[in-house]
Amino acid sequence: MYTHQIQLRVRYAETDQMGYVYYGNYASYFEVARVETLRACGITYRELEERGVMLPVRDFQIRYHRPARYDDALDITTTITELPSTRIRFEYQTHLNGELINTAMTDLVFVDRESGRPKRCPEDVLQLLQVHFH
Amino acid sequence: MYTHQIQLRVRYAETDQMGYVYYGNYASYFEVARVETLRACGITYRELEERGVMLPVRDFQIRYHRPARYDDALDITTTITELPSTRIRFEYQTHLNGELINTAMTDLVFVDRESGRPKRCPEDVLQLLQVHFH
Amino acid sequence: MYTHQIQLRVRYAETDQMGYVYYGNYASYFEVARVETLRACGITYRELEERGVMLPVRDFQIRYHRPARYDDALDITTTITELPSTRIRFEYQTHLNGELINTAMTDLVFVDRESGRPKRCPEDVLQLLQVHFH
Amino acid sequence: MYTHQIQLRVRYAETDQMGYVYYGNYASYFEVARVETLRACGITYRELEERGVMLPVRDFQIRYHRPARYDDALDITTTITELPSTRIRFEYQTHLNGELINTAMTDLVFVDRESGRPKRCPEDVLQLLQVHFH
Repeated sequence: MYTHQIQLRVRYAETDQMGYVYYGNYASYFEVARVETLRACGITYRELEERGVMLPVRDFQIRYHRPARYDDALDITTTITELPSTRIRFEYQTHLNGELINTAMTDLVFVDRESGRPKRCPEDVLQLLQVHFH
Repeated sequence: MYTHQIQLRVRYAETDQMGYVYYGNYASYFEVARVETLRACGITYRELEERGVMLPVRDFQIRYHRPARYDDALDITTTITELPSTRIRFEYQTHLNGELINTAMTDLVFVDRESGRPKRCPEDVLQLLQVHFH
Repeated sequence: MYTHQIQLRVRYAETDQMGYVYYGNYASYFEVARVETLRACGITYRELEERGVMLPVRDFQIRYHRPARYDDALDITTTITELPSTRIRFEYQTHLNGELINTAMTDLVFVDRESGRPKRCPEDVLQLLQVHFH
Repeated sequence: MYTHQIQLRVRYAETDQMGYVYYGNYASYFEVARVETLRACGITYRELEERGVMLPVRDFQIRYHRPARYDDALDITTTITELPSTRIRFEYQTHLNGELINTAMTDLVFVDRESGRPKRCPEDVLQLLQVHFH
């Protein structure tokens, strides 16, 4: 299990007329959260793509507990619960000043860009993650 | 059960560098889909809000089967599976030329704007929906 | 001179907490407007890109006169003022029920995808536009 | 004249299928840039709005020199060129590793939320800015 935390400040563009963060915008917050989680393990998503490995999202689930608002500094905790196979799961918790805003999870699949087919997680990526799972 | 279909064309802004519709953008497609589904029943979401009834999303789940691309004309089928109580559920299927792109569901809750508290679905809304449920 | 009009309905996702369409979202409305303007002339932007011709925006200017709101059905009038060379200019006017919302213009440049360099407007595109300029 | 610099990392959601930052997304980068510029002067935009002062954008102009890409860490330099009256102008320069990506400017107007009418820049805001203009 590996856990990483980032803080993101809500942009005006991301609010809606209810005065809340629009429900669809958390998807891009979680994208930032998982990319930084990987980076903290020594894995650069940009380089993965340049090597021909893509990671499209297969499943996304989110439960909204409280709204977030403009200029809020959100704490997003990302957890990789198990070592990836052909799939990598991230779980997320968003907090504001200690209060739970939402919980979410995404499943992403490793895909070979050339063939468009699923593939196993590259060996070097696995090794960088394995350090955190004993 | 009430089912309604719309067609949406993918905008360039909605693609990402994989050449696919960014996974977070379907949330706003489904927002359009459910608003048009309500409108087809005689319910205008804009008017609901003006009357002080808000409908924030409580749960959102989506499974991505195939990617959609720029300029694709997506068919989104929205189903209201049961009469709403304090909550209204919408289920979605997105197709492109008959092929399944994704399936999703949202649960929204009726909230009183003044008090910020959950409330029951307004009686007139219920009656407009009831016509389709026998 | 060639003029084309489309209507776009404002999505909830596109509003901000002021209750207005977020100022940055008009860029994607104008993208839809110019793509449909080209389509009305028989030119599909998607096919242009598939042929290796890209049209990145070089300049964008917009003056906001009145705000637009959720669910508003905006009329966007797009004008191609002159035949393109290595550059194509579009001018836009957005109206709501006859009232002016904003005016804008974009300059886009024809770029060869392989070389990344500017190129002249393809001959067949020019011919399809020329019909409307006499 | 007051100048402030921030760094923003490009999100995957903000790219398009050309592999570039979508041209419309810079508007929200500049919103972040000007909010942080004001914050550095001791002015919190969120508080301004809570006091009933809104700052809608009146004019936005941008010239794109080079594209930015996913994961790029962009340096955005924001300049307030003169003391605000009923209007406040921000000028922006975006660089990547010292290379110019784009230049832009926005004019925003002070508006009273209740009346919806233009008003002068509040006195305390003016004083906080004046420190930097001699």
